[in-house]
Amino acid sequence: MSRERLYLYDTTLRDGAQTPGVDFSVEDKIQIAGLIERLGIDYVEGGWPGANPTDTEFFAEKRTARARFAAFGMTKRAGRSLSNDPGLATVLDSAADTACLVAKTWDFHVTVALGTTLEENLEAIAESVEAVAASGKEPMLDCEHFFDGYKANRDYALACARAAYDAGARWVVLCDTNGGTLPEEVAAIVADVAQVVPGDRLGIHAHDDTGNAVANSLAAVRAGARQIQGTLNGLGERCGNANLVSLIPTLKLKPAYAEAFETGVDDDALAHLTPISRTFDEILNRAPARQAPYVGEAAFATKAGLHASAILKDPTTYEHVAPETVGNRRRVLVSDQAGRSNLLAELDRLGIQVDRDDPGVGRLLDEVKRREADGWAYEAADASFDLLARRTLGKVPEFFRVESFRVLVERRYNAVGELVTVSEATVKITVDGEPLMSVGEGNGPVNALDQALRKDLGRFQRFIDDLELADYKVRILNGGTGATTRVLIESRDAAGNRWSTVGVSPNIVDASFQALVDSVTWKLLKSDAAPARAPASALAG
Amino acid sequence: MSRERLYLYDTTLRDGAQTPGVDFSVEDKIQIAGLIERLGIDYVEGGWPGANPTDTEFFAEKRTARARFAAFGMTKRAGRSLSNDPGLATVLDSAADTACLVAKTWDFHVTVALGTTLEENLEAIAESVEAVAASGKEPMLDCEHFFDGYKANRDYALACARAAYDAGARWVVLCDTNGGTLPEEVAAIVADVAQVVPGDRLGIHAHDDTGNAVANSLAAVRAGARQIQGTLNGLGERCGNANLVSLIPTLKLKPAYAEAFETGVDDDALAHLTPISRTFDEILNRAPARQAPYVGEAAFATKAGLHASAILKDPTTYEHVAPETVGNRRRVLVSDQAGRSNLLAELDRLGIQVDRDDPGVGRLLDEVKRREADGWAYEAADASFDLLARRTLGKVPEFFRVESFRVLVERRYNAVGELVTVSEATVKITVDGEPLMSVGEGNGPVNALDQALRKDLGRFQRFIDDLELADYKVRILNGGTGATTRVLIESRDAAGNRWSTVGVSPNIVDASFQALVDSVTWKLLKSDAAPARAPASALAG
Repeated sequence: MSRERLYLYDTTLRDGAQTPGVDFSVEDKIQIAGLIERLGIDYVEGGWPGANPTDTEFFAEKRTARARFAAFGMTKRAGRSLSNDPGLATVLDSAADTACLVAKTWDFHVTVALGTTLEENLEAIAESVEAVAASGKEPMLDCEHFFDGYKANRDYALACARAAYDAGARWVVLCDTNGGTLPEEVAAIVADVAQVVPGDRLGIHAHDDTGNAVANSLAAVRAGARQIQGTLNGLGERCGNANLVSLIPTLKLKPAYAEAFETGVDDDALAHLTPISRTFDEILNRAPARQAPYVGEAAFATKAGLHASAILKDPTTYEHVAPETVGNRRRVLVSDQAGRSNLLAELDRLGIQVDRDDPGVGRLLDEVKRREADGWAYEAADASFDLLARRTLGKVPEFFRVESFRVLVERRYNAVGELVTVSEATVKITVDGEPLMSVGEGNGPVNALDQALRKDLGRFQRFIDDLELADYKVRILNGGTGATTRVLIESRDAAGNRWSTVGVSPNIVDASFQALVDSVTWKLLKSDAAPARAPASALAG
Repeated sequence: MSRERLYLYDTTLRDGAQTPGVDFSVEDKIQIAGLIERLGIDYVEGGWPGANPTDTEFFAEKRTARARFAAFGMTKRAGRSLSNDPGLATVLDSAADTACLVAKTWDFHVTVALGTTLEENLEAIAESVEAVAASGKEPMLDCEHFFDGYKANRDYALACARAAYDAGARWVVLCDTNGGTLPEEVAAIVADVAQVVPGDRLGIHAHDDTGNAVANSLAAVRAGARQIQGTLNGLGERCGNANLVSLIPTLKLKPAYAEAFETGVDDDALAHLTPISRTFDEILNRAPARQAPYVGEAAFATKAGLHASAILKDPTTYEHVAPETVGNRRRVLVSDQAGRSNLLAELDRLGIQVDRDDPGVGRLLDEVKRREADGWAYEAADASFDLLARRTLGKVPEFFRVESFRVLVERRYNAVGELVTVSEATVKITVDGEPLMSVGEGNGPVNALDQALRKDLGRFQRFIDDLELADYKVRILNGGTGATTRVLIESRDAAGNRWSTVGVSPNIVDASFQALVDSVTWKLLKSDAAPARAPASALAG
């Protein structure tokens, strides 16, 4: 049976940017567009060129390799000629492949909010779509408030959809802008629209205001639509958009969809869904939703008891899909058997040779568990895990030993009456038993410490000259300023290596220092730096 | 038109307790049962008497006033007489009104997991249901794996449901135990079951493994079921159960359901839905989901300038229900993307009287934009925005003036050879021109600063005695340790007020201090603290 093509359209960078508390820089957008492409999503909507400086800069060049790069904009204003609409011109002049224009399709909004006639609005839709096509871009129309509009005036809503189609729109997207439409309504309305615009030209744009965004998207597909708009991890205004991370596995793994439809997401991309979802949360600097469908840490977790023993005998008894297919893993909270085999696989990946039955493996497993309970997270800190494993198995030379550090942050009026904040750090280490003391200044305590630590490592100094800090992240693990702090540091060197380290402490300076020391130690370990002494701990404490 | 009665069954205290990381005490259960009853939910399932000491103690007495108090248990074991099944006896002897027994209805599980015959299993269902009825309790059957069982062996699954019904079960509940069933499957299967067991005796128990638990519950109701099982805030094993907090407003406010069905939830209870949902998160000690349907902080928030001005003209343009009906409120976020109308609406909400054409409004808008470009984020920092607005419009008394601070973090070996990290802070302020100097120690630099700042505010001290830090968040805005840091602090006081403040600086200590100072200043502003001086800046810098 030949399968129909179903298209996925990601609007994380546009509608997702409407999420309260979310604010993307151009750099963020580049990184996120990469994640979306890696998933094999067909369209990446990058934002609204002309609406703000970030989006304008982002659209100065094409930002996707495989996916279509889409720009959002508005249809031309009523009562204004096409040539006299600078907003639309900016969209047409952008580096996008596709222009997705939004138009009102609810009669009340057209007459009251736009203050124009129903007829003029239809003309504006047609002319705008034609202008996109003429510019060489692929034209799309987002029908704002389509479902509410349809309920208020079916004929007019249909006329808008049809006008876009007749003018050559590749996609006519039915938007549930307020998010209040229920699945049975979506099913009935999409089926009706499909009488006027062919289903393979229809898209669905759902919001989660009733908790039905995923179901609404699926209902629209069953009713004939062939494009789904959504976002990574369900980001979006109010309660968010349809979550593509929840939808993709259903489309790929559930027979009713997998047998009927083909998407751009291949099995390998699906197997990376969980890490991609988590990386996106890292970029947003927020904790991943533990109970998220398919990708949540708890999505395949079973508490001790009846289910757990059943699951160990036959996972299909309590798992609707295999966790590996979406890059997630089973967690049976009663047993550490899974832990041991995971650990051995991880050691193997890092090139650490160890016998299966080495008692060090059990010690390492206990140490990892103890540390994770204290807030350490090794999933995103490869280099720290590498060091911890080698130390537990007795294999890291002590390049240097930290004796003490001190950081001073002072805010005061300077000689000319300006308020200034200065940070200064002192670090005392020993290399081959010889004391070395350095002082550094920075624009904050961690920066000052970093300057001081890397100023003089004696005979190892030359091995870290090209070390640079690429990223620094802080997460507070529980409430209050007295809470535990986890710091993740990403480092890089001139050869293009990148590695991540972690530190945990109630004290943010301490946590940062641990991650800095791990970063330097790992760099030395991977360089030709000769061991100063027999295997021992490189970290004083 | 007379409406049919639809029953709600809460399993937060049983299936919700399967959530990883959740562990209810008897006290917790009593408190949560109270919340469930306040909502007007018909059944409160309190747990599984006999399964653990907490549940056994909880069922020693009746814990509900209005709602039916339900106990969970298993049907009698095959090959054992009723009188010889202590598990079932414990359930029958408990203080519950209703006994909900679970039985296997998937043929494979019956023969393999139970190791019994299909016929014996049917007998066990019938006998157990009859035993519940004989004990004077209301009998219910949870059909485990019903949907998977139906797909594997339709006739047998139906026979199980029918056996329970024939034996007198008030409710036969169809459970999607693995959570992998999709809405269209639920609709078709429930409709088929309703040919065998009347719909007003059928319940639905859905899980959110595909993000469709809410839609599956609604689909079952449309197909004839008249009981919905779910949990508060969607708690539950793996991805959670159907979220009653999302379902209730849809059932009450959406015409298709409101016109057809009556529930035990009245309008007053609905208007308390948001506080009840948040109180439940407080009991769980977790941050409420900001984007939760209906009750999330962002559920009625608008960021986009265009939408915001429309919403101020007519809220129904971008709101599918009125936020007050569910005890939530509209938020028009002040952000870079916001226009003048957002700002005016926000000032109005904060009770700041200002004329539309006051030049201060333009200055404030420019200031917000300038600061947001520097990394400030006022969306999540109401109190800091309030202060910024009042300062820009010239209305904040200077309660105290910060002259300087100094923080020292030191890591060293102590007298007994242990590595320790100590943090100490000194803060110098003036109140009414008089200098006050305090020192504090903490487990980190910010904690030490907080201790010092709040130690002595002179005559204002008594107004901040009940101030507590509830949460502290750090975000690094761009790569490297030299990057800008944004700190968000949430504070609370004894009266239950909560407010959020923000600080931004390349120096994390500095950023934290700004947010701390804003928190204290806002608290003083809202207290009866008399102004020390004419309106001016409270922040030295």
